[in-house]
Amino acid sequence: MTMLKGAAIFGQSGGPTAVINSSASGVFQQALKEQCITAVYGAAHGIKGILNEEFYDISKESKEQLELLKTTPSSALGSVRYKLKNADVDDTDYKRLLEVFRKYNIRYFFYNGGNDSMDTCNKVSKYLADAGYECRVIGVPKTIDNDLAITDHCPGYGSAAKYVATTIMEVYHDASVYDTPMITVIEIMGRNAGWLTAASLLAVYKGAGPDLIYLPEVPFTIEKFLSDVKKVYDSKPDHKVIVAVSEGCKDKEGRYIAEMGQSLKKDAFGHSQLGGAAAILGEIVEEQFKCKVRSIEFSLMQRCAAHIGSRTDIEEAFLAGQQAVKAAVEGHTDYMIGFERTNEKGKYGIKTVLIPLAKVANAEKTVPLEWFNQEKNFLKKDFIDYALPLIQGDSGLPFEEGLPKFAKLKKVSARK
Amino acid sequence: MTMLKGAAIFGQSGGPTAVINSSASGVFQQALKEQCITAVYGAAHGIKGILNEEFYDISKESKEQLELLKTTPSSALGSVRYKLKNADVDDTDYKRLLEVFRKYNIRYFFYNGGNDSMDTCNKVSKYLADAGYECRVIGVPKTIDNDLAITDHCPGYGSAAKYVATTIMEVYHDASVYDTPMITVIEIMGRNAGWLTAASLLAVYKGAGPDLIYLPEVPFTIEKFLSDVKKVYDSKPDHKVIVAVSEGCKDKEGRYIAEMGQSLKKDAFGHSQLGGAAAILGEIVEEQFKCKVRSIEFSLMQRCAAHIGSRTDIEEAFLAGQQAVKAAVEGHTDYMIGFERTNEKGKYGIKTVLIPLAKVANAEKTVPLEWFNQEKNFLKKDFIDYALPLIQGDSGLPFEEGLPKFAKLKKVSARK
Repeated sequence: MTMLKGAAIFGQSGGPTAVINSSASGVFQQALKEQCITAVYGAAHGIKGILNEEFYDISKESKEQLELLKTTPSSALGSVRYKLKNADVDDTDYKRLLEVFRKYNIRYFFYNGGNDSMDTCNKVSKYLADAGYECRVIGVPKTIDNDLAITDHCPGYGSAAKYVATTIMEVYHDASVYDTPMITVIEIMGRNAGWLTAASLLAVYKGAGPDLIYLPEVPFTIEKFLSDVKKVYDSKPDHKVIVAVSEGCKDKEGRYIAEMGQSLKKDAFGHSQLGGAAAILGEIVEEQFKCKVRSIEFSLMQRCAAHIGSRTDIEEAFLAGQQAVKAAVEGHTDYMIGFERTNEKGKYGIKTVLIPLAKVANAEKTVPLEWFNQEKNFLKKDFIDYALPLIQGDSGLPFEEGLPKFAKLKKVSARK
Repeated sequence: MTMLKGAAIFGQSGGPTAVINSSASGVFQQALKEQCITAVYGAAHGIKGILNEEFYDISKESKEQLELLKTTPSSALGSVRYKLKNADVDDTDYKRLLEVFRKYNIRYFFYNGGNDSMDTCNKVSKYLADAGYECRVIGVPKTIDNDLAITDHCPGYGSAAKYVATTIMEVYHDASVYDTPMITVIEIMGRNAGWLTAASLLAVYKGAGPDLIYLPEVPFTIEKFLSDVKKVYDSKPDHKVIVAVSEGCKDKEGRYIAEMGQSLKKDAFGHSQLGGAAAILGEIVEEQFKCKVRSIEFSLMQRCAAHIGSRTDIEEAFLAGQQAVKAAVEGHTDYMIGFERTNEKGKYGIKTVLIPLAKVANAEKTVPLEWFNQEKNFLKKDFIDYALPLIQGDSGLPFEEGLPKFAKLKKVSARK
């Protein structure tokens, strides 16, 4: 092990989750403990904050606030969606980054995000190595989409899944209250991978879930959807149907539901319609079934509902941050922290592993096709076995005067 | 006090809440204890279940399930929206109801609902009295709208308010994450009374709430709305605006936002638009400000989110049910249970009071105009003082395998 003395910087990137700040807490608290780390910085808005030299001196934050970060949703430092160009096409950003790293003697770079962010992380890592600048680069995974390659699952997913399952159970109770037919269409996030929509099966496992589940892994057609709904509607004496549909469902040509709806509508009324998948499908079933219909979008809530966060997820997110620092200090670089199930004696457990950044950059893991039923409108128990351990435990979010107590960082600028 | 021996029946009516079943639990558990009550029935789908002779024998339910009802959202017996005609116009339903009451010797009638349901309760009470059939009739209040007259507040409101405030705090964190302008429009339930939308001020009190709040108490115009948004947008360096708007906002002519949006759109594009208030307003600000916009509807979640229910609300809902039975057994009839604040030594407290049904039937209580700011787009601290005590305490909802454990009644039909 080579001892490398220098500053550490951490950035948050991509869409926020309920536990991205728990990873920040893990990185910060561990980095502040390491003797070889001379300063700990938090970048404002990810890579952008580094390029603009806008970052915070984390040693100025109190232990209490760093602890509160564990249950504070979203990205406390600010996030960004910024894709670095390939260095051989345009190396402006890379040169600037190296300049900033040199100026502050930054020797540890931790970046928290999904597959796009791991691509950033990977590019930075390779550039710095090529430039002969010694810097340990470790990615910290996060995404409610759960679509990062190789790792068993991603921090952020368990909490979002717990929100989805709990909320569907509650909506199920609400939607079944009148003795009249009703179709409820619930739209859940996930552009290409259906993991989060699949979490609706956990509500089924508890007897209060959807009748039909559509993920983007399987081509979607409105005809098949309508015939599926009709089958459920006709088979149930109370004519109550609940559908969980991923925002990312598309047909074989790659057209999203909103686009399919538009062309349908254009034919019928000569104009196009706005709205997401649930709104469009709701409108279509209303026309067809002439019954009460509710279209529900879980919107931002599914990724920021810290109050119903999974304790397992919060702790694993913290661990991922902590382990990233430990791995870097031990001399590792160019990796992302991943999870592997240990499952000793049938009891859920994980250990962290190091996954080469190149293997996760831009790669995508989807729900296995063998977990779908034959009709491809529902999932098998395999998914429950996979997901149930990830949503265990109460968030432990502290409340004050009946409302959540979230972290509020001082955000003292690092001296330029 | 006259001892009246006979059966009791309880029905749930109107839109469900997170705690309507807690009142059911209070009614059932108290009624099962009372010696003069010979049988305890739960009506399936409110008044409809009585007319159709569809009700359950509550003595067949376990104590454990009756306890679980306290934290089970929605209406376990099923609800109904059914308005009784005036008896002097058409007394068919009343005759049938009397027939059923006679058949089962029902001498206690408890009805849980909002102002429409109190109208039902009131009509039944008066009819039975006129018919000379001795029956004690007590209404049990519930509504997330908090719009019942005279009572300080209504069971169901505190939990919905806690959901709204907590969720807005979380969405606030999520919506402020990127360093680009963004306008978020959040639509909250309430057709004529703005109490629930007002609960967004609790998030402001915690530093993470909306910039603008629109309630149906004040006539709404899109022009004023746009100029309000522009002021906030221009005044904040990050150009982040969060708006809380009631689904019930309307202009002086009584047109809802969706209708206003339609006529605007019709002018512009020659066709009308679908969607609720948030969707329409979101579309309008997007056109105007050309920035990122999110339209969010709290939909059914705001009335069924038992997991973030207010302990105060759950206990008060239970108390209302319990007190309804006690009052009836003591000889009272023709009342609704209401709450009055005791506030001894400045500490929040309530006592139950009896309010004549005639005074609450169809009456509506709105947010006092003096609680609004001068611009009528925000509220004063008076509302915090009023609402904060109502959202205190953790729901105590039990979890099993990481997911809520809700009551599941056996629903054994009463013998016909």
